[in-house]
Amino acid sequence: MNDEAIIKRTQETAEKLFGKGVKLDRPYSLWKDFDKELAKDFSKFITGNLYSRTVLTLPERQMVACAILAAIRAGDELKLHVNAALNVGCEPEKLAEVFFQLAPYAGMPAVNEALEVYREILQERGEWPIKR
Amino acid sequence: MNDEAIIKRTQETAEKLFGKGVKLDRPYSLWKDFDKELAKDFSKFITGNLYSRTVLTLPERQMVACAILAAIRAGDELKLHVNAALNVGCEPEKLAEVFFQLAPYAGMPAVNEALEVYREILQERGEWPIKR
Amino acid sequence: MNDEAIIKRTQETAEKLFGKGVKLDRPYSLWKDFDKELAKDFSKFITGNLYSRTVLTLPERQMVACAILAAIRAGDELKLHVNAALNVGCEPEKLAEVFFQLAPYAGMPAVNEALEVYREILQERGEWPIKR
Amino acid sequence: MNDEAIIKRTQETAEKLFGKGVKLDRPYSLWKDFDKELAKDFSKFITGNLYSRTVLTLPERQMVACAILAAIRAGDELKLHVNAALNVGCEPEKLAEVFFQLAPYAGMPAVNEALEVYREILQERGEWPIKR
Amino acid sequence: MNDEAIIKRTQETAEKLFGKGVKLDRPYSLWKDFDKELAKDFSKFITGNLYSRTVLTLPERQMVACAILAAIRAGDELKLHVNAALNVGCEPEKLAEVFFQLAPYAGMPAVNEALEVYREILQERGEWPIKR
Amino acid sequence: MNDEAIIKRTQETAEKLFGKGVKLDRPYSLWKDFDKELAKDFSKFITGNLYSRTVLTLPERQMVACAILAAIRAGDELKLHVNAALNVGCEPEKLAEVFFQLAPYAGMPAVNEALEVYREILQERGEWPIKR
Repeated sequence: MNDEAIIKRTQETAEKLFGKGVKLDRPYSLWKDFDKELAKDFSKFITGNLYSRTVLTLPERQMVACAILAAIRAGDELKLHVNAALNVGCEPEKLAEVFFQLAPYAGMPAVNEALEVYREILQERGEWPIKR
Repeated sequence: MNDEAIIKRTQETAEKLFGKGVKLDRPYSLWKDFDKELAKDFSKFITGNLYSRTVLTLPERQMVACAILAAIRAGDELKLHVNAALNVGCEPEKLAEVFFQLAPYAGMPAVNEALEVYREILQERGEWPIKR
Repeated sequence: MNDEAIIKRTQETAEKLFGKGVKLDRPYSLWKDFDKELAKDFSKFITGNLYSRTVLTLPERQMVACAILAAIRAGDELKLHVNAALNVGCEPEKLAEVFFQLAPYAGMPAVNEALEVYREILQERGEWPIKR
Repeated sequence: MNDEAIIKRTQETAEKLFGKGVKLDRPYSLWKDFDKELAKDFSKFITGNLYSRTVLTLPERQMVACAILAAIRAGDELKLHVNAALNVGCEPEKLAEVFFQLAPYAGMPAVNEALEVYREILQERGEWPIKR
Repeated sequence: MNDEAIIKRTQETAEKLFGKGVKLDRPYSLWKDFDKELAKDFSKFITGNLYSRTVLTLPERQMVACAILAAIRAGDELKLHVNAALNVGCEPEKLAEVFFQLAPYAGMPAVNEALEVYREILQERGEWPIKR
Repeated sequence: MNDEAIIKRTQETAEKLFGKGVKLDRPYSLWKDFDKELAKDFSKFITGNLYSRTVLTLPERQMVACAILAAIRAGDELKLHVNAALNVGCEPEKLAEVFFQLAPYAGMPAVNEALEVYREILQERGEWPIKR
């Protein structure tokens, strides 16, 4: 795949993930502040190469991304990806369950931090409390 | 739900997860060596309460468990749950993709450790290489 | 032990740990916001089964809980358990020493975060500086 | 306190902690292989300054050290300190309970790794299973 | 080296690292609030013994310290050492590259947290954006 | 830069880092076992884009990589990069000092694991003990 095709795919995937819902600062602008070239390389690799793969559906990939970010307790990044998960159609109740599933492995502090972030994003989106 | 019902559900869920595939030591016998009563409490809580919930399907729950265990780099526990994931019907190619998805967040050492564990379990199950 | 007995024991232990000192949000209400049934299961398991055991005295258990939470750098949860430690009679000077003991293993950032949390709770309780 | 007094105290404390039980490689000899001077500084600081303090009794300090090392999943160092804990008179059943207490915070992989190390050391010391 | 010489060296090294740039709370005063004697021991060991060694130049040591603190995601401590790195003459562009180098190992959340801290310190020092 | 140029640069950089010293399994072959296409993307991004940048010299970059890998306690990956560091000309004594510098931040278990890996690689290269 040539470079132009990667850039186009990067933009389309980014739009699906981050184009609606809560407006949040994205790391891309932080990277660009330090190095324009590398910012593009990061973005093309993560969004263009990895996130554009279709072995997992986008909702599946986002559920996994949220599980990982919650497990390593990366709250800011999690905020971004909880929002993206809802943008691409993850079921809200399933996402809560992903965070409960952290309990026996990553511990309750990880569960609590993830649920706090999740509740906050749901509130900002006007989707709180979760409908069943 | 009364205690008997929980115990029954614990055993049924444990059977689905760990009843076939590679034979591995399960932590339950380690806990029991130190404290029989608490071993039961752990097991009833984790397998009987948490793993028996149906918000996520068992394959979805196992994919998430594998993502979390790989993210915190808990290789022994991951071995157990990779095997369980395959037992309950996770698609092998999707599970590999879960581990690739670790790359931008938990880092390449987490990716590599997870893929090593996964390849080893697939080999022991006679399911290597993955068919597409 | 039947379910009613567990619930009673959960409430009694929670009262001893969190019933006085600084008023803080407890994770129980966060869990309940997402799932009432699982919130009860978490609470019964952690407070009713684990914290109600008597192999360690409550002050010993709290000292250990504080050591663990400080080691994994879980500041919010630590705040709750530093307060609980003082509620059940941990000696303030010993608790400070627990945090110093983190230095060679969990590193100075863990020491510093724990001491900051501890000083803040002692101040809010009107017990600062520690008497010797 | 002058340097000679610190060195004497370092040796006395090291003897109490590591002078009996299972024979294990101690990090001091590893440090010395790379830098003799710094090895002494590490040892004087950790064993001479920190471990020689009396705010916590040695059994209390070892219980806390074991909780911390188990929480950060440092198995080799934990082996050393589980042995030291038993050398200075920690009650074996209490030490097991310290590791169970990891469950809600550091997660089951931390519990399991700690119990495995502990069982191994108890076996090598001929003190397995724990008497009650 | 006698105790007086260590104290002198501790003060000189501390002055080089923290004597200019952004004014930040240093952990020494936090330690002292809890224990004067141990605060001195920590300081003499870290600044007097370790940071005063000359195998690495001070700019090299600070680059390494920043890499480590960013990798373990210790933002407050990183702030202090990013400032110190600039005080002892680290090249600003190289320090940014250290943080980019985290990407494949410690993951993007570590990169992002480090770059945020770094941009903030550069702004407070009036050295933003970095000149090339 | 077009794709062919990136591939060429990836190979040249990989050769400098891993082309001599101890023969070790490289993660590239593990990735390829699961997904050929993604293996190339990982390699082009990490080695072709990131490691080929010249803001840091290769010895500087390797010192930083070793500091990061030791801090997150990724022993297998560290082995690879300690060997690469020596291949590109890092001074052996400086690399040891990088690992000592972990002590106050990442803790002694990180120091000890890194020094063990380092000593092992130096022995396999026939460069032990370090000359001064």
